[in-house]
Amino acid sequence: MTENPTACLLIIGNEVLSGRTRDANLQFLATRLGEMGIPLREARVIPDIETTIIATLNEVRARYTHVFTTGGIGPTHDDITSECVAKAFGVPWVVHEETRRIMAADYARRDPPVEFNAARLRMATLPLGATPIRCEMTSAPGFTMGNVHVMAGVPRIMQSMFDALAPSLARGTPVVSRTVHALGIYEGNIAAALEAIQARFPALDVGSYPFYRSHGPQGFTGGGVALVAKGTDAAACDEAAAAITEMLRGLGAEPVQGEPG
Amino acid sequence: MTENPTACLLIIGNEVLSGRTRDANLQFLATRLGEMGIPLREARVIPDIETTIIATLNEVRARYTHVFTTGGIGPTHDDITSECVAKAFGVPWVVHEETRRIMAADYARRDPPVEFNAARLRMATLPLGATPIRCEMTSAPGFTMGNVHVMAGVPRIMQSMFDALAPSLARGTPVVSRTVHALGIYEGNIAAALEAIQARFPALDVGSYPFYRSHGPQGFTGGGVALVAKGTDAAACDEAAAAITEMLRGLGAEPVQGEPG
Repeated sequence: MTENPTACLLIIGNEVLSGRTRDANLQFLATRLGEMGIPLREARVIPDIETTIIATLNEVRARYTHVFTTGGIGPTHDDITSECVAKAFGVPWVVHEETRRIMAADYARRDPPVEFNAARLRMATLPLGATPIRCEMTSAPGFTMGNVHVMAGVPRIMQSMFDALAPSLARGTPVVSRTVHALGIYEGNIAAALEAIQARFPALDVGSYPFYRSHGPQGFTGGGVALVAKGTDAAACDEAAAAITEMLRGLGAEPVQGEPG
Repeated sequence: MTENPTACLLIIGNEVLSGRTRDANLQFLATRLGEMGIPLREARVIPDIETTIIATLNEVRARYTHVFTTGGIGPTHDDITSECVAKAFGVPWVVHEETRRIMAADYARRDPPVEFNAARLRMATLPLGATPIRCEMTSAPGFTMGNVHVMAGVPRIMQSMFDALAPSLARGTPVVSRTVHALGIYEGNIAAALEAIQARFPALDVGSYPFYRSHGPQGFTGGGVALVAKGTDAAACDEAAAAITEMLRGLGAEPVQGEPG
């Protein structure tokens, strides 16, 4: 089995670091990339500061197969991601003629027409050599430069851009998971048995996540643990989930596959 | 004015990188730390891998005034944060006697009593020299080691630990913000004027955030921009917000302080 490609996400924006905006892109991308066999290995939230963006880009693009960025590609002065990508790659930041034509046609078609001013022209300006990521939500594109994929921060636009980008990415072996929930079980009671199961399945990632529900879907109130076996070997995940279920039954618990009722 | 202290957050956990769990701690800590004048400058989500945790801890604790971590301090085999902090600081990881006594008394008091087994004893094991962070939700503590503050990943426990820790942190000048919303305004129409306002207030962070509401609190549907002036100088924030309001009125928009209706 060949090694899966790896991904890093850079969330670029002061508004996330100040608490003003709650990021919604990490979970979407983590899930989609895992399904594609390009597991997310790291995510960073960094501010709109040129030196920070450039240094971080150069660090992570050397380390991971793919780098995805969200945020900072709009028309305002605090949108500096695109220019920083150009500087990180050491290439000029220039108007992309095809993109300019597409945006001009889009703006002219609007009623009333939208002025294609200097601020909007920044959104047609890309690092030299970048490939635009065109989506259905806007004529202002994201882009791919080398192994860096630059997307909008607004979730519905980011998702549209990712949908457009995804078919071009080489897939790895999908990461799958099996989850067994047990109600009324404490982590401290199963830790040793769970560690033994992890040792039996070294290629998998066996995790334990306590939860508490005050109003579950069927009126359930109380705590428990979600035990997860995750990896690229689906058959091994099934075996590990069976071992977890057996272990829980030995403790007198009633394990539930999937979400607890 | 002295420089504010700075903060970095490490979110430690495979479950966030796989998309299984949506982080809820970043926004809470970003908001609270900003109010305390300890602005969050960076956040990283990293996996439960020992070498990664140690290297990241040592990089960021040298760079920021404070490092906060969430996740990985429970009793199961995938909870390795505490041991990694000890290794990052080059100190032994040893049973903290006072904590052991407190946890033993807590477990003995439960009905039925909880077994204080090897897995649970790991939660009483701390880097030598660490100061426990005791909270109301659990007898298993977080801890402070040097400038690193280690907290649980479960949001209600993390928040309780932060409440216990916060009074001991030296505060800086609170970061405040003023937000002006304008409906039906596009970023591309105000970018130049907003950049001029940013130039007038170089000590502030002037940001522009487009939004779209399909069902606002008063039935509002549509898009607009939220324009934010943020910094430690509250009077300058007021002035910048007034300049933003004036700029928007000049465009025929009806700016709204705070949330749009």
